[in-house]
This record gives sequence, C-alpha cells and structure tokens, in this order.
Amino acid sequence: MKQRVAIDMDEVMADPYEKLIRLYEEEYGIPIDRSKLPGRYLEEVVHPDHRSAIRRYLFAEDFFEDLLVMPDSQEVVREMQDHYEVFIVTAAMEFPDSFGPKYRWLQRHFSFIHWRNYVFCGDKSIIKADYMLDDHAKNLETFSGEAIIFSSPHNAYETRFPRVNNWQEVAERFLSNQ
Amino acid sequence: MKQRVAIDMDEVMADPYEKLIRLYEEEYGIPIDRSKLPGRYLEEVVHPDHRSAIRRYLFAEDFFEDLLVMPDSQEVVREMQDHYEVFIVTAAMEFPDSFGPKYRWLQRHFSFIHWRNYVFCGDKSIIKADYMLDDHAKNLETFSGEAIIFSSPHNAYETRFPRVNNWQEVAERFLSNQ
Repeated sequence: MKQRVAIDMDEVMADPYEKLIRLYEEEYGIPIDRSKLPGRYLEEVVHPDHRSAIRRYLFAEDFFEDLLVMPDSQEVVREMQDHYEVFIVTAAMEFPDSFGPKYRWLQRHFSFIHWRNYVFCGDKSIIKADYMLDDHAKNLETFSGEAIIFSSPHNAYETRFPRVNNWQEVAERFLSNQ
Repeated sequence: MKQRVAIDMDEVMADPYEKLIRLYEEEYGIPIDRSKLPGRYLEEVVHPDHRSAIRRYLFAEDFFEDLLVMPDSQEVVREMQDHYEVFIVTAAMEFPDSFGPKYRWLQRHFSFIHWRNYVFCGDKSIIKADYMLDDHAKNLETFSGEAIIFSSPHNAYETRFPRVNNWQEVAERFLSNQ
C-alpha cells in the first residue's frame, strides 16, 4: 500500500506571500524591508498602522484565485503520485470566500490530483497520514506521522522538524530512493 | 484529554433526504414508494428515466443552504462538546457549490462549534479521530477508530457497525456514562 503524504497549499504549492507584498507596496507605496522577514510574519514587518491590511487582502474574495504556483511543485507532485497517495490539506476554513478559488486553483494547476484527495479544514490535528509537508510549525506539532517543514520566511528559525527549502529538495527526500 | 468524535453532516445532522423526495415528487408528480427505500439509494427507487434528477438537485447551487436540522441533533451535539472534541466531517468536495451553503448552515444551526473543527473533504480515510458517526459504510470501513453507523434508508441492511437510529440513541451511546 502506498504511503500517504498530506501537502499544504499556501506557501508550499501556492505563493500568497509575493502577492501580499505586492498588494501592500502598491497600496501604501512603502517597500517591505525583506531583511526583516526571517522569523516574522508579514504583519510584524509592515508599518504598525497598516497591520490590518494583510488580513484585509487575505479576506478579499478573489485573493486565492490567481496565486502563482511554487516552482517545480507540479512536476514533483505529479511524480510523487506514482509512489505515494497525495492529499492536499489546506486550512481554508478561516477564509470561507477562499473555498471556490482554492478548489478552482487546484483543478487548474494540479488537475492530476482527484478532488477526493482535497481537504479543506481548520485544525489539521484531524489529519491521518504518513507524512505532512507544511510551512506552519503549529500544524506539524500535532501530527502523528513524519512532519517536514517547508521553508517560508516566518519559520526561518524553527528547528524541530526536518526542513526542505524548495521542491527540488522535496523530490530528493521523497523520490530519490524510489 | 477529550476523545474526538468526527460527525458527518448529510443524513446525520442535516436532512437532504426529505428535500430530495419533495423536489422529485413536485417535479414529476410521481410519489416515491417509500416501502422500496430500505437498502437502496433514492436513485434506485425513482422512475428509471428520472435517475439523473437526484444528482441534478444535489448539484444545484442552493441545495444545501436550507436543509432541515435532524431532530435533537443540536441539543445532543452541544452536550457532547462538554465531554468530547467534536469535528464536523463532510464529503463536500463532490459538490463544490455546496461549500458556502454548508459553511453557512453550520454557522447558523451549530454556531457553538468553531470553524476550526469543520472538515470539507472527499475521501474520509484521511480522518484521525476516536469515533466516527456516519451513514455511509464506505466512510466507516476505512476508519481506524470506533465506527458507528447512523441509520438512513440506504444502510438499512448494513450489519458491520454498531448502529444508532436517531440522536436520542447517539446521546445514550456517548453521554450516558459521562
């Protein structure tokens, strides 16, 4: 039986990060100081008066519709499906307007993954799988299988989980022995 | 730590069944022969020429918006939350238009359950919990905890799982020893 991998969407398969930075810089005309990003969330780096802007962008109805696909993720996930059962697990419940956009985004960019293998949830401790690939330590902490952290600026100083920095490293970890 | 119960929505908390029968009878003017329902899905009982109607109703954008709440479910789930961690797990992915209606239905009728505890998925074998309450044997078959079947006409002859016929029986099973 194939082992099962639960893969997160945002900041792993999809890139909300660059879109948030672009929207912020366009609205306020203030460049984000990227040197301050490691170990922090965007809300902690923008001007203190504008913190709520980040959540406002995330809650906009079309925010998740046109996110860029993370480099190499399509090729690697497609190959992973030959050896693993791949599930997409995304904490969509905080943003109810994201359900449709996220579903369509997956159908558009990862059409080779069946909708039976999508999970839109809140608390990911409900997930049973052999591996979890996620950028959020809070999701990995409660996971009972092997938890792997996908690098994102906010998790730069997190040391509790094996780390992959990009999809080439995901391929090395999951496919090099297949 | 509280044990975790994964509860299905359709035909357990919400009643799509009576609405489907009403829509069918209104459209075709042919009464459903309820004596034929045990052990069968609605599609198998309606006139053979009209089988696709049931799926057409289910795929309508507003179908899941105004389903009736199953009798006693609100009171029992509310009390279960004192003793268990309650998650709502629904196979929503087949009907992408149901995401918004299902989310709003839960917020309206079960506002005491946090959205963190909602799961919209396809294949429920991804769920990790101590108990699963569901009307579909296929969901219970792959579950690693204690699987309990909630009676619905289609599962009338299913004998592999302990059975509850209504929410009073759910209360007896989950709350009588608390």
